Formats: sequence, structure tokens, C-alpha cells
Amino acid sequence: MADEVVLLDFWPGMFGMRVRIALAEKGIEYEYQEEDLRNKSPLLLEMNPIHKKIPVLIHNGKPVCESLIIVQYIDEVWKDKSPLQPTDPYQRAHARFWADYVEKKVYEVSRKIWTTKGEEKEAGKKEFFEIFKTLEGELGDKPYFGGETFGFVDLSLIPFYSWFHAIEIFGEFNMEAECPKIVAWAKRAIRKSLH
Amino acid sequence: MADEVVLLDFWPGMFGMRVRIALAEKGIEYEYQEEDLRNKSPLLLEMNPIHKKIPVLIHNGKPVCESLIIVQYIDEVWKDKSPLQPTDPYQRAHARFWADYVEKKVYEVSRKIWTTKGEEKEAGKKEFFEIFKTLEGELGDKPYFGGETFGFVDLSLIPFYSWFHAIEIFGEFNMEAECPKIVAWAKRAIRKSLH
Repeated sequence: MADEVVLLDFWPGMFGMRVRIALAEKGIEYEYQEEDLRNKSPLLLEMNPIHKKIPVLIHNGKPVCESLIIVQYIDEVWKDKSPLQPTDPYQRAHARFWADYVEKKVYEVSRKIWTTKGEEKEAGKKEFFEIFKTLEGELGDKPYFGGETFGFVDLSLIPFYSWFHAIEIFGEFNMEAECPKIVAWAKRAIRKSLH
Repeated sequence: MADEVVLLDFWPGMFGMRVRIALAEKGIEYEYQEEDLRNKSPLLLEMNPIHKKIPVLIHNGKPVCESLIIVQYIDEVWKDKSPLQPTDPYQRAHARFWADYVEKKVYEVSRKIWTTKGEEKEAGKKEFFEIFKTLEGELGDKPYFGGETFGFVDLSLIPFYSWFHAIEIFGEFNMEAECPKIVAWAKRAIRKSLH
């Protein structure tokens, strides 16, 4: 039986982007179903009754939810092409740690920059720089977080690149001046995906 | 080389309990180092410089942090005895989904019951029942969340059993009357661990 893969998603969604990148990396064909988040489809509510959120991957009729769990699932099912996670358990735990760090920290702090004002916004910016400096420290001089190839941590973080422009405008700073390594990394990842 | 395993932990800690249970299930010998959370050891700060939190598992000198990541690491390194995660990728994604649900929901809502008052506390209780009813729905009539044997989801949730008594007193309700399946499940898991 050929695999039937459906993705329920909303095009600007941060978390769905991770899944779309993973599917593209693996070369998996799938049917894309755009969701209207103000009027969620019966299929979305049936497939993710707990969180009622996109993205949902439906593989041969069975749903997988939560973006990082979906990415791991894709990597474990279609394991022959473009491995996203390291095979060594220690390296895999290390990658999970940093993807989890991105998951816990980056979304919240990024939104703070355009949803708050005054002192709260300044505190948000300070925290934003601390988090991205920490990520730059982890990246170091490697081309990608996992080393030579694009992988799980890169994939968890790269969708936020699409927010950098808005963050710069609302935050009144230049991302490349503040976090040059992250911007160089993001451009590298985007360039790679165009080839 | 024999494995050198050290656990940095604090005995009543919810998250460390998960790791201690996983180590016990696997029959792994380890050195336990109790941390004073008001005066964290230089070793803890060195091994978990990002979050500075327990538990930390140090395996042959290398740290693994964040309880559910540690448990997955233990399961993947010592894979021959007492598997905690399903081998099937779909079942594994399903287990990760529910462990993630526990991680995102149960700690916060449980603390609300003894840290808030009045309306806020009543809202907390309502949310607490919703979450535990959802977990009862997922458990269904199975002995454990994963089926016949104690596994990853059970392990993520069982430490909260040690809070049920305090939750009942502060929440002024009877856990067994409200969530009979969860209490029966917890007793089953505890009984099992004594054999």
C-alpha cells in the first residue's frame, strides 16, 4: 500500500513549518489541507481532540500531533533518507535538549517584543538577547546545530527566521548586529533549502 | 569499561522521581548525589549550565538534562531490559504525545490547588478534573497507559501520586471518588514496583 500522508496546517504557522520542512527534507509527497483557525474543520477536531491545534499529520488515517513529535515520527518512519536526528543516543539526547530549549523559550520571548511596551518590552529584549546568545554559544563555529548537516535543532528554530524582520522593527534593533552567528546560520539553512 | 552513572537530584522532586524509576526498572546501579537547591553544587552548575536544575544524569562524565529526555536516553542506551517506549513508531509518537500532555498540564494545575484561593482555586479544581478526566479517557480499561506493561506515560505521571494527599486536603475533595480509574492505576503501578 502506498503511504497516504495528509497535513492539516495554517500556512504562516511556526510549528507547521517544521513539519513541512521535515516532509520536504525526506521527499515525502503529501496532501496539504489549509485550516481556517477561526472555523476549524471537523477533521481537525476529530484528529486532534485534545489540543484542537495545527499541525496534525495524518498517516494512513492515523493522526500524529505536536510539531516536534511529528518531526521525530517522520524521521523514524522514513529513516532511510536525510536523517534528522543523530543515531548515537547521547547526541540524540543532546539534540532533544536544544530543540526543547527552543520550544520552551523562543516563541514566548519573541512575541513579547511586539505585544508589550516600555519596561516590559525592554525586559523582553534583554531576555531575547540572552536566549539567542545562548543559542549562538551552542552553535559555536559549526555550520548547523548538529554539526555538518541540517538536523532536528535547526529544524525546530528555523521557522522563527520568518519573524526576525518584525522583531527588528518592533524591537528597534538589528538582528545581524546583535546575533551575527544566528543570522549567518539562518541564511545558510535557507540557501541550502533552495538547492 | 563499566558504566559510571551519577544522578544529581533532590529527593522529593517530581521530575527526578521519573529518572529514579527508570533506573530502577532497568536495574542500573548509580551513585546518588543529593542537591541542596538553595546552595547548588558546582557540579550541578557545571553539568546543567543552561537550566541549573535537577535532575541531571551523568553517564561516563557526560550530562543529560530534563527528566523526559533523560528517561528516553536511559531507555535507548539500556535497551535490552524493561523497554519503556514502544518499538512501533506510531505507538512511540502516541506515548510521547501523552507524556508531553502530562508535562504541559499536570504540574501547573496541581500547584494551583494549594497556591490559590477562592474563585481562582475553584477554576483550578475545574481544570484539574478536566485534565484528569482526559487522562482517564486515554487510560480507558487498560492496566497501564501503554497497555499491559508500565511504560513512558505511566512513568511521566506516577510521581504526581505523591501529591494526591495534599491535593485532596487543599482541594477539599476525594481523589478516588472523582478519578477512580486514575487512583486504581496509581495503586496498580505502586504495587507492581514493590514486587
